[in-house]
Amino acid sequence: MNATTRQPILMYDTTLRDGSQGEGVSFSLQDKINVTRRLAEMGIDFVEGGYPLSNEKDVAFFQQIRDIDLGGTKVCAFGMTRRRGMKAADDPGMQALVAAQTPCITLVGKTWDYHATEVLRVSLEENLAMIGESAEFLGRHSDVIYDAEHFFDGYDANPDYAIETLRAAAAAGAKWMVLCDTNGGTLPEQIAAVTKTAIEKLADFDVRFGIHCHNDGDLATANSLAAVDAGALQVQGTINGIGERCGNADLVAVVSNLALKKSSYEVLGGRSLKHLTELSRYVYETANLQWRNGQPFVGQSAFAHKGGMHVHAINKAASTYEHIDPALVGNERRILISELSGRSNIAAVAEQHNIADDREAMDKILAEVVRLENEGFQFENAGASFDLLVKRVTGSFTPHFDTIKYRVVAGDRDSRSHTVFAEAIIKLMVGDVLWFDAAEGHGPVNALDAALRKALQGTYPCLTEMHLIDYKVRVVDSGAGTAASIRVNIESSDGNESWGTIGVSENIIEASYNALVDAVEYKLHKENVPQPVADADSNDQADLAESASAN
Amino acid sequence: MNATTRQPILMYDTTLRDGSQGEGVSFSLQDKINVTRRLAEMGIDFVEGGYPLSNEKDVAFFQQIRDIDLGGTKVCAFGMTRRRGMKAADDPGMQALVAAQTPCITLVGKTWDYHATEVLRVSLEENLAMIGESAEFLGRHSDVIYDAEHFFDGYDANPDYAIETLRAAAAAGAKWMVLCDTNGGTLPEQIAAVTKTAIEKLADFDVRFGIHCHNDGDLATANSLAAVDAGALQVQGTINGIGERCGNADLVAVVSNLALKKSSYEVLGGRSLKHLTELSRYVYETANLQWRNGQPFVGQSAFAHKGGMHVHAINKAASTYEHIDPALVGNERRILISELSGRSNIAAVAEQHNIADDREAMDKILAEVVRLENEGFQFENAGASFDLLVKRVTGSFTPHFDTIKYRVVAGDRDSRSHTVFAEAIIKLMVGDVLWFDAAEGHGPVNALDAALRKALQGTYPCLTEMHLIDYKVRVVDSGAGTAASIRVNIESSDGNESWGTIGVSENIIEASYNALVDAVEYKLHKENVPQPVADADSNDQADLAESASAN
Repeated sequence: MNATTRQPILMYDTTLRDGSQGEGVSFSLQDKINVTRRLAEMGIDFVEGGYPLSNEKDVAFFQQIRDIDLGGTKVCAFGMTRRRGMKAADDPGMQALVAAQTPCITLVGKTWDYHATEVLRVSLEENLAMIGESAEFLGRHSDVIYDAEHFFDGYDANPDYAIETLRAAAAAGAKWMVLCDTNGGTLPEQIAAVTKTAIEKLADFDVRFGIHCHNDGDLATANSLAAVDAGALQVQGTINGIGERCGNADLVAVVSNLALKKSSYEVLGGRSLKHLTELSRYVYETANLQWRNGQPFVGQSAFAHKGGMHVHAINKAASTYEHIDPALVGNERRILISELSGRSNIAAVAEQHNIADDREAMDKILAEVVRLENEGFQFENAGASFDLLVKRVTGSFTPHFDTIKYRVVAGDRDSRSHTVFAEAIIKLMVGDVLWFDAAEGHGPVNALDAALRKALQGTYPCLTEMHLIDYKVRVVDSGAGTAASIRVNIESSDGNESWGTIGVSENIIEASYNALVDAVEYKLHKENVPQPVADADSNDQADLAESASAN
Repeated sequence: MNATTRQPILMYDTTLRDGSQGEGVSFSLQDKINVTRRLAEMGIDFVEGGYPLSNEKDVAFFQQIRDIDLGGTKVCAFGMTRRRGMKAADDPGMQALVAAQTPCITLVGKTWDYHATEVLRVSLEENLAMIGESAEFLGRHSDVIYDAEHFFDGYDANPDYAIETLRAAAAAGAKWMVLCDTNGGTLPEQIAAVTKTAIEKLADFDVRFGIHCHNDGDLATANSLAAVDAGALQVQGTINGIGERCGNADLVAVVSNLALKKSSYEVLGGRSLKHLTELSRYVYETANLQWRNGQPFVGQSAFAHKGGMHVHAINKAASTYEHIDPALVGNERRILISELSGRSNIAAVAEQHNIADDREAMDKILAEVVRLENEGFQFENAGASFDLLVKRVTGSFTPHFDTIKYRVVAGDRDSRSHTVFAEAIIKLMVGDVLWFDAAEGHGPVNALDAALRKALQGTYPCLTEMHLIDYKVRVVDSGAGTAASIRVNIESSDGNESWGTIGVSENIIEASYNALVDAVEYKLHKENVPQPVADADSNDQADLAESASAN
């Protein structure tokens, strides 16, 4: 079919706002900026960044995101209608939304008569005025997307009033009417019928419709698709469906179904979905959540075939046991190498190292990745560690220093006067020079980081440019309590570039140290800083000095 | 409406057969029998127990289950059509199915012409003969349920042939035609249309229809419901949707939607669903799988409320933020204490502590929660720490011990020979007794945990019952790198109950220690273990002893 005949359906991501309502989910400022960039790269049309009235972090997000080029992606600030009995211009929430200076503002208002009178405690007329005046005020500054909270339940309770709330927003200039199944319990046939009716009832306005579903009935994907078939042109949801209770509509599943199953629509401006699996995992890692292996399209098991069949037979008939080609969403079939998550990553990085045609090197890298993944490594967020792994396996890695030993001491010297402390010592060789240093820190890892830099900065002054911007810890096998393996991810930056490294160990100090060492080595390799050449004799002397000082 | 006008929809559970194809899932013989009993108690109409040809365990299952009264629940044995070029009576698979002596046999056959000719390597005519002769042979012994594999893909490829395969089974006496979306990629509108057509095309036979969906498109629940609306009278699926790739249709969601949302159908003979949450968790535990917190209807978060605004509304009228009453499926509402929380969240929890009417106590708790949340605490996963906070604020907390100091040492004594180590020492007072202990561990926190227990177990033997079941770490403000605040969550269990505690500090060791101390204090408080009374003089002596031993 001709691509130009496809109806574009816009994708609105609210991972950073509604998604962060999920249990145990919270994003740092840097997380929010990183996720927004990734969503923009994917071609997501709208990114709801937060709720500027609620906290300083969201205010800072909107300030910083303005200076970042996101292509065609529009950032949205989210907020509620003005308070009762107050002018929109005087309302702090309205002012915060305008101050966010986003191209779009998403305004949420009450549809359900019960919620207006019993929760907000305003008359039905005042609720309409709150919607209309808020939309009118915000519309002077930005495009207004009107989210009609509880639309389907509200329509069920009082259809005329529900439509009146939409008309109030539309009359005030809102561009989009987004129908929300806030409680997530509506069935697809109800979504379809009510969406169709709402569109008809607003036919006299120049507005477009969207849909916002929750998954309480396990129907959020189906409901989003049903609304699109009924005429909605925008779908709101979150990556991986994270969100409170049972979550929001999963944009991963919505976008995949629309792009790959429904030929009459176009999503993401026709872009490929080949980075969708990567995006899904990036969001899980950033939110510090476990992946869902069985997640449709992008889960690790989504194309896993248990086989008694011969490999060739599976490869031959595989497509007839798969609903789509996994490569279309950046996922892969798992038959033989069950643990391997990133074959395409390996191929891509191998290409950067000019070894894509080197079969033997590729096999070695693959084997090493499988071995490390079995230990709990995960390279999705640790591109710099993966880069160093490739260098090591292909023999192009020479270390800039050798660690001899390190130690941290941390605790509370006196719990009554609260004298918490953390200290680290480190001994390492740079060429034939022995460095022994100590440092204090806010915690053991901070102290270790400080000691490592102290020992290296004399030889490698460029390390003063770099600093840690994020530190994440997760338990790989949480069933074993504090004895479980621990995965540490560190994100470093030198102002021009940021890079991720990883360490895994039962001991959090060792895991952290390994990630710190990779961060430093990556910086030195990317700057092409030459490795010092150790002289064998001096090296021996250094060893002697060390064993003398050890007593 | 009159309950007698409801159309019964029969539930067919294949957790024990198709569910066990899921990665990491396997059931012992006793597991299978226990799960079957539970499914029967729930009122599930058919339980597919296994594949008698495949293994001895399934053969033994069918032998043993015959002697157990399962009420109206029918056990089914599962198997494929006879092999090519062989009489049904001579086929070992057919013989095994008959030997299982179940009231129903589920026979699976090929619908898709490609699979017949390319995978089975038989002619289209021979495939029809295999279906018909197998159904006829098995039908002499039991009711035959015919599962039409790949029905929707097969119908798409060759609709006439797909219908022929059903007619072959129906003509041979099969009672049920179950249309399988084996690859799980079909959309609800296709399911509905094709199901309707198939029913029409088989109108000359006395057969009923069923549906069997997989969740590869995140649509298995919607697809099952769509088939029911199109005339299917049986739904096949698994408890919690476990199964290979993205799993089967989740009978938990299907049965809940049919019973609670669609008034024209009756399921489980009209029984209550109040044991559904229990059944879901029982199956997770038996299969040794993690629960899915966000699972619709039965997940731990399915009725968890976080935002202050919502909780305020919930207390007014629960139904306005819940799609169903959680008690209907045996689940319960949870109020989460979160960073967005307001007074109303606290009030809900305070009610459980019988202090909801104590205005002054409530104000103090609120102030303390706000202060701690600003430091990075989050109580939603740390109910035990919140419980202790309420006790402390209201003056009903007396500690069971006082920490004097603690320290961990961790590192690598020799990076070349890789001698990673972690040690902890602790000094604490229990009443007037001073304890000074040390322990090693896999990492610093594990060592600290061991030292703390070592110091306390002599006084409090009940602590031997408890152990850590999860340990989570995250950076609260990750923008500051390793100097950021660190939040540690610990989940502990004593076999009867599990409880969550929290610690926050810039120093991960201090954060972990505080969470460990709360875990121990919670256990001692809930067991009503009396606090030892310290004598002032002995305490001074202990202090003297301490300062002497410190040199």
